[in-house]
Order: sequence, then structure tokens, then C-alpha cells
Amino acid sequence: MNSCSAFAPASVANVGPGFDVFGFALEGAGDTVTARRSDQPGVRLLKIEGDGGRLPVGADNIVCVVAAAMLRAANPGFGIELFLFKGLPLGSGLGSSSASAVAAAAAVNGLLVGAFDNKQLLEFAREGERAACGAAHADNVAASLYGGFTMVAGEPPEVSVLKVPASWHAAVVHPHLELPTKKARAVISPAVSLANHTATLAAAARLVAGIAGGDLAMVGRSVMGDRVATPARAGLIPHYEQVVAAALQKGAAGASISGAGPSIFALTEGLEGAKVIADAMASVWRARGIECDIIVSRMGAPGARLAAEVPHANPLTALLRPLHQDLSAR
Amino acid sequence: MNSCSAFAPASVANVGPGFDVFGFALEGAGDTVTARRSDQPGVRLLKIEGDGGRLPVGADNIVCVVAAAMLRAANPGFGIELFLFKGLPLGSGLGSSSASAVAAAAAVNGLLVGAFDNKQLLEFAREGERAACGAAHADNVAASLYGGFTMVAGEPPEVSVLKVPASWHAAVVHPHLELPTKKARAVISPAVSLANHTATLAAAARLVAGIAGGDLAMVGRSVMGDRVATPARAGLIPHYEQVVAAALQKGAAGASISGAGPSIFALTEGLEGAKVIADAMASVWRARGIECDIIVSRMGAPGARLAAEVPHANPLTALLRPLHQDLSAR
Repeated sequence: MNSCSAFAPASVANVGPGFDVFGFALEGAGDTVTARRSDQPGVRLLKIEGDGGRLPVGADNIVCVVAAAMLRAANPGFGIELFLFKGLPLGSGLGSSSASAVAAAAAVNGLLVGAFDNKQLLEFAREGERAACGAAHADNVAASLYGGFTMVAGEPPEVSVLKVPASWHAAVVHPHLELPTKKARAVISPAVSLANHTATLAAAARLVAGIAGGDLAMVGRSVMGDRVATPARAGLIPHYEQVVAAALQKGAAGASISGAGPSIFALTEGLEGAKVIADAMASVWRARGIECDIIVSRMGAPGARLAAEVPHANPLTALLRPLHQDLSAR
Repeated sequence: MNSCSAFAPASVANVGPGFDVFGFALEGAGDTVTARRSDQPGVRLLKIEGDGGRLPVGADNIVCVVAAAMLRAANPGFGIELFLFKGLPLGSGLGSSSASAVAAAAAVNGLLVGAFDNKQLLEFAREGERAACGAAHADNVAASLYGGFTMVAGEPPEVSVLKVPASWHAAVVHPHLELPTKKARAVISPAVSLANHTATLAAAARLVAGIAGGDLAMVGRSVMGDRVATPARAGLIPHYEQVVAAALQKGAAGASISGAGPSIFALTEGLEGAKVIADAMASVWRARGIECDIIVSRMGAPGARLAAEVPHANPLTALLRPLHQDLSAR
């Protein structure tokens, strides 16, 4: 194989009380990486599309960090050239850096004929996260790699995946306001009161029980039960309270910040309801002159996959296919 | 009805990471309360058995606190006389005060012909907990009242009950060392580091996922993942590390402090294995001159029930029945 492309989906991390622990994958949005064999040793990023020229093309790009770590570990006797197609906005709370890291890990692993298992790919992708935001947190990376609803625990992280009822949907709205993850992490107090710890842990436990038991109402209430990260971060997101209220008014079971924000997600039963909720949420921002993107998705979509498996519905596929064929034909 | 008796089981609270949140009921050990109608208004505790004369017989006894609150709420036009049969040692970490409070609530409710539902009974029983230890925590009370594996969240607490696979068993060993709950609460720092919060929350989430998914190994690892209460409390329990090590060596999936201690529980598959583990744990203390009681039980036994439903296997039944008949015959 001379080249391999992989798609990794956007994801919602934290999911209310599960700061640095919970995540779930979205469908219909994500990043794609093509990895190509090269006789020159080392890693080079040849092109980035979709970032508006904002990402570095050098060795400090997240995809280069991931690919270089994998090359060092596998030592395959060839170098790698990379192409990155950003389908996700930066600093959006949609797991943009994780999607790039996971797509790179999956594409390079394809080129190495599956040399690494998912556990190892998670570690490589986390190296990318560390380069992007200073902390190798695994919540977005796990969700984007494995799909479903994921929980990470321990160091190195062990991932558990829960299946989410197929009818549960997420309405995710991304306002065009950038909130760097580093800034959103800095507002969280390094010390949690015992009462807030206990209340947040209880919400997280009930969120998991609700997914396992198919109780969306309990999951929704639990999503709103975080007392550690959400209260501090909500203040960084203009009109947060109004957007959440709009979602609940349209019947959402619960709503909270997606990842580090500023995107906000809401949960509900059924695709149609999710669209109505997403529109109501977006209207709050739009009425105040803030543009928005909407993602409506199953809660806990499939995780990363090689390009052949990328669904046609994905707008990136059209972009990817010709290039992929072109590369393969060389 | 002139009199009514109820049994409430012992329980394991916290269950590792779930400080003030998780609990599960044990079988074969608990407290029993008989409530009898009286023409005199108010509440009187006529007799306590099994406490070695250590509990107060006045209005500040936990069962009086609970019964008085219920009388005030129901205003039935009669008073109540109470008899308390302690089947559980005090300050043991087995939910002794909760079992008394729940048994009182259930017995008085029987006398009031089921005037209150479980949610209300939980609140009355918590008033007893507040009188006993200064904090109306609901973890033991919920487990003893509802049975199964319970999670409490919010104020007033909402209880979720998870069914535990029938083959999962707990080995619980109670060393004859008293550790007052107040003292065991005082050693827990009022501030939790963000890293410890996250790690403990992840363990709690995985513990719930493990119960829901029938993965005892994951539950066992998660039980050992607490970084908030257990590390501080372990130092109050002589030979804690050795007792846990003995349980793991005999194949326990995990072990930790039961409630506020000093009892220690371990989890395993099957009753026979639990007996072996309990013996190994007790041997550590016994070899050092500390006497022990052993409880071997399903993890998540049934909760409180009226006396007619108390199983014959319970040693308290023999004590209870004649008295109950005697009272009824008056």
C-alpha cells in the first residue's frame, strides 16, 4: 500500500459532569488524513485544507507529532507524507485537534498494515493532544477513535465504550466564537470542594446508569449536574444560559457545554426533535449577531475508519476521493 | 393494626469511589423495629436489645427521631411505642444507624397503613442519620431501604437502583474496633484536587458501567480507584493494607472500606469464594489479636421489609416473632 486515508469524527467531550472522562462521537463532521509512503525518512505535512491557513505546516502540527511517534515505534524503513483535510473548526469544543490526531493515527496505521491496536493508537493520538493543548487528555481522542459513548480512566487510560440507544440524538451548535482549550482549562479551579465533588460524581454515575438503562430523562438531568467545569466555563460563552434554556424549552432532556466550548450540545429522542432544538439554540446566537454551525447526529456515532468506509453523506468524501485515487495512481 | 415490625438490612456504603453516593444492601444482618399504637401521644422507646446498653433510650435515639417526624407529618391521633432489636454493631461501617432508622420508618409506616412512599420514608430515615452523625447522608439509608445497588444524587436525594448480577457476592469482615463515623468523616479533606476528582469520578462511572454490563473485574478495579475518602480513612484502620492484600490474593475482584470503616468488604463471584476470602481477611486481624465478625452475602440483597417477610435464616427472627405475637395478642 502506497497511501491510506482515514476519517475521524468530531466528538462531544465532558458531557456535563464527566470532565476529562466522558465523550461521545458525532456523525457527519470530522477530519480526514491521507498518509503516503515516501523514500525520504521522517514525516512531512504537504498540505492542509479547510483551516483557512491557520495551522502550522511544520513538524509541530499535531498530525506530524502523531505520525513521527508512530514511525519511531514501528521503524518501517520509509518516511511518510501527510495531507490534512480539516472538516472541523478550531477551538470549537468539537474535538477538532483530537479528530486530526486520530485520523493521522488511523491513516498511518493503515500504511503500516495495522501494526498497532486501538490501545496503542490512543496513546499516539494523545501525543498529538499534548502538543495541541499541553495536556494529553484522552476524552475526545477516545470518543473519536472508538465511537459510541466512551469513558477513560487511569494512566495510561483504559477506555470503556457504552452503546447508546440508537434513537438518542444530539443537537450541537457551534457559534463562531473561538475559545482556546487552554483558556477554558485555566478557569477551572484546581481544588474542588468535597460537596461539589460528590454531587458531580453522583451525576456522572447516574448518567452512565441512564445510558445503560435507556433512561434519557435521567441522562439529561445528569448532564446538567456538573459543578466542577461547567459553572466556570459557562461564563466564557456569551448567552450560555439562554441557549440552554432554548434547548430545554423545545424538549431537550438536558444541555451543556461541548468539550471546552463554546459549542453547546443538547440531547433528545429522535432526529427531527434534535433539528428543532438545534434551530432554537442557534436562533439565540443569531439574533445577537453571532453566526452558527449546526450538527445534528446520533449520540455516540461510529468512530474512526479508513477512507473506503467513509460514508458518502460526508462532505469531505468528495474532497478526499479524487485525491486518494490520484495518490494511489502514482 | 396495633403493632408492626420491620427489618432493615446492613449495607456497604461508598463502595470505593462513591463517597456519600453508592451503597448496596447485605443479607443476613440488620436491625428490627417494632412499632405499637399507644393512646398516649408522642413517641416512647420502651426497650433496646442487642446494643449492650450503649444506646440512649430517650427521645434522641435515632428510632424516636424518625418516628416523631413521621407522627408530626401524619398526625394519626395516636402515639407510638417502639422496641429496637440491634442486630448490627455500632460504629462498624455496616450502616448500623441507617438500619435502625430505616427499620423504624418502615415499621411506623406499617402502623400508618402505608401512609408514606419510599421517597418520603427515605427523608424520615435521613432525619435519624442527621441525629446520629450530624450529616443526613443518604447512601446507607437508600441501600437499606431499597436494596440492590443504590446511587443517591441531589437534595433532596433522588435514588437510582441498579440490579446486581445474582452470582456476585460480598465478603465483609468487621474487626472489633470501633470507628465513629464523625471521626472517619473528619479525616477527609474538604478540598479535592482536580486530578483526584477526575480519577475518582472515572472509577465511579466505570463501576456503574461494570455493574450494568456484568463485568465484575472492572467493578473490582473501580472499587480500588478511590482517591478521595479511602486513602485518608485507610490510615485509621489497623492492618488495612494486609487485609485488602489477603482478599486479592484469594481472588477477590476488589476490596475497600465498608462505609466509614473499620469493616472491609471484598467482591467476588460465588458464595463459596466469598467465604474463603472472608476467612483470609479475618485471619489477618485475628493473627494480631483482633476479633472479627464475618458477613457473606449477595452484593445488593433485598431492602427493608415488614416482619412477616423477614426470612427464617435471620437470627433476629426468632427474637422478633415471639415478641411480635405477644404484642399483637394484647
